Amino acid sequence: MTVAVIPFKPKNPKTRLSCVLDEQEREAFAEAMLLDVVNVVRDADCQPVILGTELFDSDLVQVTIKDAGLSEALNEYLSCAVTGVLIIMADLPLADKESVRRVIGTKMDMAIVPGRGGGTNVIYLKEPARFHVDYYDGSYLKHMKIAQECGLSCEVIDSFLLHTDIDEKEDLAELLIHGTGKSRAFLLERGFAITTDKGRVGVERKSRN
Amino acid sequence: MTVAVIPFKPKNPKTRLSCVLDEQEREAFAEAMLLDVVNVVRDADCQPVILGTELFDSDLVQVTIKDAGLSEALNEYLSCAVTGVLIIMADLPLADKESVRRVIGTKMDMAIVPGRGGGTNVIYLKEPARFHVDYYDGSYLKHMKIAQECGLSCEVIDSFLLHTDIDEKEDLAELLIHGTGKSRAFLLERGFAITTDKGRVGVERKSRN
Repeated sequence: MTVAVIPFKPKNPKTRLSCVLDEQEREAFAEAMLLDVVNVVRDADCQPVILGTELFDSDLVQVTIKDAGLSEALNEYLSCAVTGVLIIMADLPLADKESVRRVIGTKMDMAIVPGRGGGTNVIYLKEPARFHVDYYDGSYLKHMKIAQECGLSCEVIDSFLLHTDIDEKEDLAELLIHGTGKSRAFLLERGFAITTDKGRVGVERKSRN
Repeated sequence: MTVAVIPFKPKNPKTRLSCVLDEQEREAFAEAMLLDVVNVVRDADCQPVILGTELFDSDLVQVTIKDAGLSEALNEYLSCAVTGVLIIMADLPLADKESVRRVIGTKMDMAIVPGRGGGTNVIYLKEPARFHVDYYDGSYLKHMKIAQECGLSCEVIDSFLLHTDIDEKEDLAELLIHGTGKSRAFLLERGFAITTDKGRVGVERKSRN
């Protein structure tokens, strides 16, 4: 059984979406994205564990960590883990079963999915204690270097569904186009729709229901 | 033999990169990206044909079309094609052999790779005469609808390497991080480098050599 660790920030998340969603809406939207990720990793036969800075109202298995210590908390977890570990971010609602299976099906020691802008969206480790994470500031290249230093073979999984993290207003268009789950439904319920302007697709919010 | 049709604009291309590259540089950069795509489709056993609005100095097979008629020109080509056709954009220098092979290896009637912002980056057609293209204004959803109307089964290929078209300054960071070919080398020669600011990776140009 692979454990899927999903870092999650329940309070005041996704501040770069403040232009179109107020704080309460951002919290509901972030939780909808989390649930999409949880459902997908379950479909891929992983056991989700939420790693958060505080508990939130949910039946999901939650582990809380002190503020400002994502890498440290994950490394503590990895050093003790006895099964394969998938670390997957909570803002990847385009993820589907096939893309997650491609990650955990790697024949190498580990797999990684880069995010846009040099980040790391997903890491899969067959032997977690042999690796350590170092998030922020271009973590993708740092993780590739750590893999090499630790002598671990690493497959880069070529998936735009796992590459597309939802951070900014423009990203909502990707969710409306390619999404299928609760977070897309949340946007539609709140009046978001795709627009077409000069050949590029964007989003608009028709009403604040 | 699959023919890979690559639409290409040799004069004043990639105007959204004007902030960091002058016109002559943009033309050289666009040609470097084109050559990266040409090399990759050849590696994947496709025969490249450049579809452009004017001839440029090159040994590549070129077909010229009238201005402002990409969809029309492609549809004329498709209606007469007797082999499988891959339509791949010239601004996809992250493309690699594996991702192109995933596209042309589809078991369905056709395959498509969406671009960022609702566009279409790659289409593969086993029976080109049964389909017609309609680019611009959110072409991905239009192409999915056309496939359905034409009774063609269509696989969406989940690849960030083919999803990432290089249009804006921020995209250059993706090319510096994930690229391997001539267009990446061009950027390095011109003094472009990755920067890290507030956890996101960007680019800066150190010098105008």
